[in-house]
Formats: sequence, C-alpha cells, structure tokens
Amino acid sequence: MGEPMRPIERGDLEPLATGAWILGTGGGGSPYLSYLNMRKLYADGSQVNLMDPADLADDALVAVVSNMGAPLVGQERLSDPTFAAKPVRMMEDYLGRRFSAVMSVEIGGGNAFQPLLVAAMTGLPVIDADAMGRAFPEAQMTSFAIADLPMFPLTLADIRDNEVIVARAASWKWMERISRKVCTEVGSIAATCKAPRSGAEVKAHGILYTTTQAIALGREVRRARQAHEDPVAATLTAAKGKLLFRGKIADVQRRATEGFLRGTARIEGIDDDRSARFEVAFQNEYAVGWRDGRVVVTTPDLICVLDSVSGEAIGTESLRYGQRVSVIALPAPAILRTPKGIAHVGPRAFGHDTDYMTVFDDVVPMGQQR
Amino acid sequence: MGEPMRPIERGDLEPLATGAWILGTGGGGSPYLSYLNMRKLYADGSQVNLMDPADLADDALVAVVSNMGAPLVGQERLSDPTFAAKPVRMMEDYLGRRFSAVMSVEIGGGNAFQPLLVAAMTGLPVIDADAMGRAFPEAQMTSFAIADLPMFPLTLADIRDNEVIVARAASWKWMERISRKVCTEVGSIAATCKAPRSGAEVKAHGILYTTTQAIALGREVRRARQAHEDPVAATLTAAKGKLLFRGKIADVQRRATEGFLRGTARIEGIDDDRSARFEVAFQNEYAVGWRDGRVVVTTPDLICVLDSVSGEAIGTESLRYGQRVSVIALPAPAILRTPKGIAHVGPRAFGHDTDYMTVFDDVVPMGQQR
Repeated sequence: MGEPMRPIERGDLEPLATGAWILGTGGGGSPYLSYLNMRKLYADGSQVNLMDPADLADDALVAVVSNMGAPLVGQERLSDPTFAAKPVRMMEDYLGRRFSAVMSVEIGGGNAFQPLLVAAMTGLPVIDADAMGRAFPEAQMTSFAIADLPMFPLTLADIRDNEVIVARAASWKWMERISRKVCTEVGSIAATCKAPRSGAEVKAHGILYTTTQAIALGREVRRARQAHEDPVAATLTAAKGKLLFRGKIADVQRRATEGFLRGTARIEGIDDDRSARFEVAFQNEYAVGWRDGRVVVTTPDLICVLDSVSGEAIGTESLRYGQRVSVIALPAPAILRTPKGIAHVGPRAFGHDTDYMTVFDDVVPMGQQR
Repeated sequence: MGEPMRPIERGDLEPLATGAWILGTGGGGSPYLSYLNMRKLYADGSQVNLMDPADLADDALVAVVSNMGAPLVGQERLSDPTFAAKPVRMMEDYLGRRFSAVMSVEIGGGNAFQPLLVAAMTGLPVIDADAMGRAFPEAQMTSFAIADLPMFPLTLADIRDNEVIVARAASWKWMERISRKVCTEVGSIAATCKAPRSGAEVKAHGILYTTTQAIALGREVRRARQAHEDPVAATLTAAKGKLLFRGKIADVQRRATEGFLRGTARIEGIDDDRSARFEVAFQNEYAVGWRDGRVVVTTPDLICVLDSVSGEAIGTESLRYGQRVSVIALPAPAILRTPKGIAHVGPRAFGHDTDYMTVFDDVVPMGQQR
C-alpha cells in the first residue's frame, strides 16, 4: 500500500509517456499528443493527484475512461482534454451521480493519459490502476470482463456533437460490437466512459499500481538512455522481460479495417539472430510472434517492438521498412493468464488458431507486485 | 377536426393493414405480422384509442415510434408488442417524464401498427398523424426534420438485451448514420423511439389524420374486392391517384445492404401498355420510375406497386418474377413537395441524379385534406 494521495509531478509525465508506450505492446495509440496536452495543462497550473486504490471507499464511484479507435486515426487527430471529459460528464448526467475518481481502462499507450486529461478538467484524482496492465483492442479484454462484472452503461462522444449511451448490452461482446460500430461510424475515434466501477470492484478486480509502474519503467529507460547504457536491456531488467529477437524490419502489411489496425510485420535477424527471421501479427496490439515460422510467444504476454538504439516503443501504426528493432516480451498480469483470462485475451480471441505460448515460467507478473 | 378520442375498432385493423401497406410504397415492411399481433391483443381484451391531434395540449409529450431496419429481415422476425414498447419505456426513464400519447414516424407499412402495439402495452392513446404520410427509409426524411426540429434523443432496443440511447447528434443525417449502424449491427431490425415531440410540434409539423385515411383507403379497397369491382381503380379514386403502368414483373435485382433493401424491378407491359416497359428503383421504398427509359415519376410522389387482381400492395421484399402488377402514383403531402421537402426526400436524396418529377399538377395532397 502506498501513500493515500500523491501528486503526479510534471517530471513524471515524460517517463509515463515512455513507459506506457512500451506497455502498449504496439497499440493503445502513441501517448505523445496526450503527453503534450498534459504538459501544457501543467504549464498552465494544473496538477493531477494519483490515488492509491487501497484508499478507495468500497462504495466510491470510479469512471473508467478510454480513447477508443484505430491507432492510425488517433495519430491524425490532436487529443483534447474537453473531449476526454465529455463522456464522463455524460455518464454523471445519465446516472444522476458524481464520480469520486477516474482510471484508465488500459495503462498501455495514450490511454495512460486519458484519466489525467479528465482529472485536469474535473479535479478528480486518478486511481493508480487499470484493467489490462497493458493495452488490448476490445472491450471484453479487461480484468473487469474476466471477472464477469456488468458491462453497461457506456457513454461515447465524438469531436462533433454526437453522443451515444449504450444503456444495456446482452454481453461484453455485444458491448464491444455496438460501441465499435458507433466508433467506426464517427470516424474510428471516440472518447468513452466505460461501465462505472465501485471502489470495491476496482480493488478486487483492477490491475493495481500500473501507473506507478509505467512511470518507473519510463524513468529507467530514460536514465539508461542518458547514461549511454542499453535502454532495451534496462527495460528487460525493470519489467522482468526477455529479449526475443533483434533485427531489421523487412516488410509490413497493414490495413485499417472495422475500426482496427490489423496486419503483420516481418523482421530479418541481425547479430546473434542473423539468418533467422521473426514475424509478428497485430490487431492494434502485437498478438502473436513466430520465429522461423514457429510460434514462440502469444498474447497475453506483452510483445513489444522497441527501437534498438533508443529503446522507444514502436507502435503498429509506425512500423516501417528498415527500422532496427528489438522484439521483447514482458510478463502479463496473473488474471490474464488464468484459463478464463486466456479465453478473453489469448491468441484464439484474436483469431489465431494456436494455444497460449509464454516465454515466462514462474515470474511475479506486473500488477501483482508491490 | 374530428371527435376528441375514438376507439380503433377491431374491424378497423384489417383495413388499416391494407391501407398502410399501399401507403408504404413498397417499404415500411408488411403490416401483416403486426396486424396479427393486434388482432390477438384485441381478442384478449385490448382496445386502443385514436386521438385527434388537434386535441393535444401544446406541452403534451408524444412518443414517436418505429420499427427500424431492412424489410426483408422484418418479414423473418415476428413482431412483438413488448419489444415495440421497450424503447418508449427507455425514453421515459431517460427523460424522467411520462408520455401522454404515441404516434408513428410513418403511416406506411408495418409502422402504422407500431404505435397501436405500444398503446396496447401502455394504455397511451395513438395520435391520428405521422411524420411522412407514407414510408421513407431514413431518419431525416420526416416532416419534423424538414421543419428543423431537434433530432435527439433517440432510444433503440433489439430483441436480445441491447439498449442504445443516441443522446445527441450533430445533425439529422448523423442521427440516421449512427442509429442505422447500431440497427444493422444488432441484425438489421430494432425498435426505436425517436426524438419526443411536444403537442405543439405535432400539430404544427405532423402529417395529420393519416391513420384515419389509411383505414378509409383500406376499407375502400376491401369493399371493391368483395363487390368484384377493380380494387386498383378503387385505390385511385379513394386516394386521388393515377395509374402509371400495367404489366408483369420480368426481372428483380435486390440486395440487403447497409441496413437497407436496395434494387430495381423491370416490368413488361400488358394490355394498353404492351410493347412498353417500366423500371422502378427502390431503397426500401420505391423511389424512381422509368417508362421506356425516361423518368416519369419520382419520390416524394407515392409510387405503389399493386397486385392487379387483388389490389394488395407488393413490398420491395416480395417482388417476384411473373407477378401481374399495376404501378400507380399517389400525391405526396404538401410539406414534402416544398423545395426544402424535396431536398430531404426528393430523388437526389436517394442518390438518383434527376429532378423531382410528379404526375400530379394541382391536387390536394394527403395529410392536408379534411
């Protein structure tokens, strides 16, 4: 258990961007534009507080926010704190209750900043937790869904004047289908507030302390970079990861379809991995990795593609020919690796006809430390 | 102005089905299943009251209901009064207000019965009016949209447990796009409650007395049929229409796409029209008619394809090779024929690069009589 409430310092923002982008496993959208927004809000006098989830009252009402859509589109539209807060206000109006805190559905990618943007607009504290411990593309791929918590209501706003409430859904997959179609129709980008959670639900079923962990990870990568150490090695040490492959991007197949960015990348090996090749498939996030045609790693293990020199994460929308990359794996939160978790977020949930394959045997996974 | 409130008699139901199906101009879905539902509800003791719109208080709250989707799908799923009433209850919960009456968005097709189904479940009176005076496929094709009334909120329910509220929309076309995508995703059939209307709005901008007119039209067709007179001729007399073509269906192109039923039918002439041919294009409803390749009639004129013997309307989902048909036109309500009306419901609104072409010069259009 940490301090009850501590400010997120201005100096935490850049490490958070770096760490969250690695935890995005290629998806979640680059945090860069949201980071710029937060930096400006801080320069204008905002400060956001981070709250230990252990200090949430059981009956506290927590907003679970995300910026939903295809990462490629997220890169083309400047994020905006008013837009991020809109579905939270919609939800409060709809419920006739006020939130006492806000958290992200996913710590990976730009959504690490979504609750900070909302907090800057509303004064709510940000809960040090998320519901994935990484990023995932679909609504039912959360620890809350795995725990069978209710999936509605959901509020969704676009940048025009369209506002949709999914008041009930027959299942998590129906919630995903309906909200995804609306998101796609309004341009494959929408701000959402997912089903509100009680403090008790967050404490029992959230992935805890992931904001703190993302900041710490980013801080370590940046330290290594400044000390002219290997930032990829620093990531592996900080997040208990494993190096899978080093090489050069040789080919990228990518299409924005049905509100997602799908495709594969092929990497030709260098150094120790020369004469080998690695392929990685993605749906927003990296989902399955093959070495010389054999599956070696799958979701929910965090598959990350990093720039071999800077250690910066490379998103599925930014992969391009010639990049020197290191493919690494980080351990997934324990709840995702249970049989129920694998059913929600394992490789078959992404359409791959293969079993869950992990490169970790017996590690303490993220979100369960501390 | 009629009596303030009169019961819709059991004997009105079958004429309403016949008349509304003609006014559906091929769309709106067959009223047959909804008629069977109402007949059963009447047999079980229900009775629904029809209210003169002139007797609505200005501040009365009126539910505008419709069964939304592709007619072909509507034929495959039995309609159900509980399902019809669901979005009305959702809207009342959302607004925190109770409705004092219910009306259909369109008198054409099965939606003529939608407010009756709701009324049987709720005890609300049915307003003798609609917002089209016929059927149209899209949300912005109403007299309320032409009058620039607000288009939100809208509630939508499917037959599972999915419930969506479009709380705001940037425009009528955005409301159409978003609600259509949700409708399509849940199986191209959904019960909806459109933006609530005040009594003042209904009186000023509704198409008035169309329920009464549909019953009268159906009664006349059935009378002619029983008297061995020509029911097509009876329709023309009762609704001030014109015969455009008599022939036999020679070809039908039809596809269910984007939540609509689109296509064309080709009719080879017989009797006076032999050696001529007629083509008619539809998007749920018949939209444009060509005689020997030349446009002779377009929406918003009501283009109806009737069985030449029985006078029964033939829906766009029921057209088939070999049917003996009479193509007729009925005059459209005046508001639809204004320049603003044509912009909303003229042929260009259906993607046809042609101007509005009417076969009526100076008639008193439906919905303006009485």
